[in-house]
Amino acid sequence: MQDRTHAAAATPGETVTVAGWAHELRDLGGIAFLIVRDRTGRIQVKFEKEAMDDELVATGTDLTRESVVAVTGHVEEEERAPTGVEIVPETVDVIAPAEPELPLDPSEKVGAELPTRLDNRTLDLRRGEARAIFEIRAEVLRAAREAFRELGCTEITTPKIVATGTEGGTELFPITYFGREAFMNQSPQLFKQLMVGSGLERVFEVGPIFRAEEHNTPRHLNEATSIDFESAFIDHEEAMDACEHVVRAAYEGVAANCADQLDTLGYDDFSVPTEAFPR
Amino acid sequence: MQDRTHAAAATPGETVTVAGWAHELRDLGGIAFLIVRDRTGRIQVKFEKEAMDDELVATGTDLTRESVVAVTGHVEEEERAPTGVEIVPETVDVIAPAEPELPLDPSEKVGAELPTRLDNRTLDLRRGEARAIFEIRAEVLRAAREAFRELGCTEITTPKIVATGTEGGTELFPITYFGREAFMNQSPQLFKQLMVGSGLERVFEVGPIFRAEEHNTPRHLNEATSIDFESAFIDHEEAMDACEHVVRAAYEGVAANCADQLDTLGYDDFSVPTEAFPR
Repeated sequence: MQDRTHAAAATPGETVTVAGWAHELRDLGGIAFLIVRDRTGRIQVKFEKEAMDDELVATGTDLTRESVVAVTGHVEEEERAPTGVEIVPETVDVIAPAEPELPLDPSEKVGAELPTRLDNRTLDLRRGEARAIFEIRAEVLRAAREAFRELGCTEITTPKIVATGTEGGTELFPITYFGREAFMNQSPQLFKQLMVGSGLERVFEVGPIFRAEEHNTPRHLNEATSIDFESAFIDHEEAMDACEHVVRAAYEGVAANCADQLDTLGYDDFSVPTEAFPR
Repeated sequence: MQDRTHAAAATPGETVTVAGWAHELRDLGGIAFLIVRDRTGRIQVKFEKEAMDDELVATGTDLTRESVVAVTGHVEEEERAPTGVEIVPETVDVIAPAEPELPLDPSEKVGAELPTRLDNRTLDLRRGEARAIFEIRAEVLRAAREAFRELGCTEITTPKIVATGTEGGTELFPITYFGREAFMNQSPQLFKQLMVGSGLERVFEVGPIFRAEEHNTPRHLNEATSIDFESAFIDHEEAMDACEHVVRAAYEGVAANCADQLDTLGYDDFSVPTEAFPR
């Protein structure tokens, strides 16, 4: 689908193919509107029933919400459309039809409880807010890694299957490792230190850690992504400076590159901390 | 150690503190030379025995190789020194002395067999070649992630503890997960697909995968770092274009940013592929 146009890039006068999800369908009798959603935005598709091929109209108006579709047609200006343009379709290709009854509403017009959302997480993730969280998270990872490189760190990826624990206080997940005892690592601590001693001097890792603590809150994770830093020839002041640099860089990255996502999540007062962090 | 100077940055006329490893010691009788190695390079420290404090001379000349030291002194031009400068020391601080007998020689003047190297991996990693491999690897990861972002991908980090395998043909490591059966994931495949369907459309992950195959070669890994990509609305040609883009970006990153490391490894003909990859 190399000739695909993203919804947000469709310009009046062009003939385009957009692909995405059937976000909404409004059938007003003589005319029907389909909103197609892709990762860049939404675009309206107009079905004028009298003026169009019956089969094309039927394909468009019979669509179930959240079905996957590709629509080819001519883009026209239409000030009443949500984005000021609409597609007059020539073909509508139903790539994957959705069940008519969905367990939750990704358009969020009808709310859903957390258990329903978790039981239907793939559908839940189609909500704009869920997607924004993942996109901001990706930006935080990017900005943090870049900040560590600015500090002269080399990125490492250390073993997750280990023979012993790194530190006390947390429980380990045991693994059956070819008949021998092994564990999933709770922290890259020891490996980081070995790599510092190897002469890399400053290293960082962004990777999974595993902690086998029974959890009874929705905030406690047995598996998480850890952002780790280790340096030789450094004192606690410089270590705190490094942490501050990375946290600030994450804020700066989100502020610079995630305006839409912050808006989706309702953060209208997001700002980068300007003062030195309390010590 | 915020006032530390890196070896490669020491400029004649300055008073500096360098910190690193005692790479080499040559005692010529009336004069002795210590080479201190840090991640930026090496610098010579000169001990003129008659002209210096006896204790300072003793500290410098008694150093065992690979000990960790910090040297403060005045930088002077010296064309016979390896880098054209040397430090006339005022203080030598032995941060951590090394055992006099090392199981292998990180300067590589004396070679070591693979089993010796693996049994003493922390020391082995002090070899310039080992370090260069890790540094190039970090650059490949950086360049690959950047290339995926250019393709419109969102970075994800998916669960490594899973309830079932992703695909046939590879064995899984079983985990004891609070009395239930679980496994370490062999691939992020299913999670990538779910995230594509969530509306992110294009995702990538760089993370560990686990395959419980008994190995009988030094090239077969039970744990590896996988570079994964998944996209909606794409055909096989575009998927191959994406792979080509990422592989080429990795070459470009290494060519642009790892000249010293390639030199250390003896690659004098490293170049970025310019032709389209065979299909």
